[in-house]
Amino acid sequence: MAFEDVELPDVSGVTVGILGGTGAQGRGLGYRLVRAGHRVTIGSRDAARARDAAAAIAAMPGGDRAPITGGENAAACDADVVIVAVPWPGHGDLLTGLAPRLAGRIVVDCVNPLGFDERGAYPLEVEAGSAAEQAAALLPESRVTAAFHHVSATLLTDPEIESIATDILVLGDDRAAAATVQALATRIEGMRGVFAGRLRNAGQVEALTANLIAINRRYRAHVGIRVTDI
Amino acid sequence: MAFEDVELPDVSGVTVGILGGTGAQGRGLGYRLVRAGHRVTIGSRDAARARDAAAAIAAMPGGDRAPITGGENAAACDADVVIVAVPWPGHGDLLTGLAPRLAGRIVVDCVNPLGFDERGAYPLEVEAGSAAEQAAALLPESRVTAAFHHVSATLLTDPEIESIATDILVLGDDRAAAATVQALATRIEGMRGVFAGRLRNAGQVEALTANLIAINRRYRAHVGIRVTDI
Repeated sequence: MAFEDVELPDVSGVTVGILGGTGAQGRGLGYRLVRAGHRVTIGSRDAARARDAAAAIAAMPGGDRAPITGGENAAACDADVVIVAVPWPGHGDLLTGLAPRLAGRIVVDCVNPLGFDERGAYPLEVEAGSAAEQAAALLPESRVTAAFHHVSATLLTDPEIESIATDILVLGDDRAAAATVQALATRIEGMRGVFAGRLRNAGQVEALTANLIAINRRYRAHVGIRVTDI
Repeated sequence: MAFEDVELPDVSGVTVGILGGTGAQGRGLGYRLVRAGHRVTIGSRDAARARDAAAAIAAMPGGDRAPITGGENAAACDADVVIVAVPWPGHGDLLTGLAPRLAGRIVVDCVNPLGFDERGAYPLEVEAGSAAEQAAALLPESRVTAAFHHVSATLLTDPEIESIATDILVLGDDRAAAATVQALATRIEGMRGVFAGRLRNAGQVEALTANLIAINRRYRAHVGIRVTDI
């Protein structure tokens, strides 16, 4: 069955908040989503930095296709879809604090719990199994999914690059929430959001980022992944 | 850097043994490697079954491009490259027994430690971290790599399919051994062998097979993976 044969919802009016939106991954996703026509709120522990990041994105080519604003992380929770793009060490505490604000929201975890040493990147042991499962445990009232683990922040933030040729693996136990995230990913030029299983299979998707970092080193590239035969 | 810019060794004369070569994955890899011109020995606990499998492969289109024979698993150890394609439950015992025979050989582990229940496939906990790391621990005199985890046995064994569009992620701490396996994978029509990190990063590559199974179910496909930008 071709990718196109699986119907996805119309998400053209969906608004997006990004927790940790001033990091490279968060800023890059914010830029791509604004460029795809979505209203975005950049969240940060530091509201002033979030406002600066939003202003910088708005000034980029295509950054004016939809409104983008910045504020505290709590302000970014008032969106249809909330992306979690914080560093792994602060992941648990942040989500614990925001749990009431995130009730009922579609949450997209894109955090990769990785360590780095002189031999490169490697996956950290995560008690819950994965960052996404930790998010699901801390946010029982939210519709938790996982996606956007593998896309290069360098490509996302480069305004010269119009299309990013990669598939986004989307995981989730709530199929409708996953389909919304798949559709959102597919709105970004070059990307397809592919359903890739339940949250219990998120750990290896997060950890695979260590392999992509190894490939990037070996081939001096910014690699992505395409799923063949769909 | 393009994939082609990284030089790989000439492996045209390399011989291949396959432990557990009567299973679908082992038979499929044997067929593709014979078709690519490599002498192959199919190994099995049951030498008669291995001989039958070898004869069946030899009779397939292109199965006569190189000699293929069958025998006990120990007989398949006398090859330049030995692929481990046994079911996970017997992996440790088999390799423990064959360790002296595999000394000095390039070993390619392609075992995926997965469980299955009514919700689909999921990764099993592996004490050594991964099947490949277990192999490396049991075979200290061998040059252990990991590869061929994701390629569909259905595609491998279908003689009508000439080219299988997928990249093979190759892992290993011995770079020369990994390069040999990359080159071997690249000999199979449609495939590229991509270096994807050290053995400590093999666990998530093995576990990712659970996600590919989920994708296959969702899209009714036989998916593979392509690494973009190389």
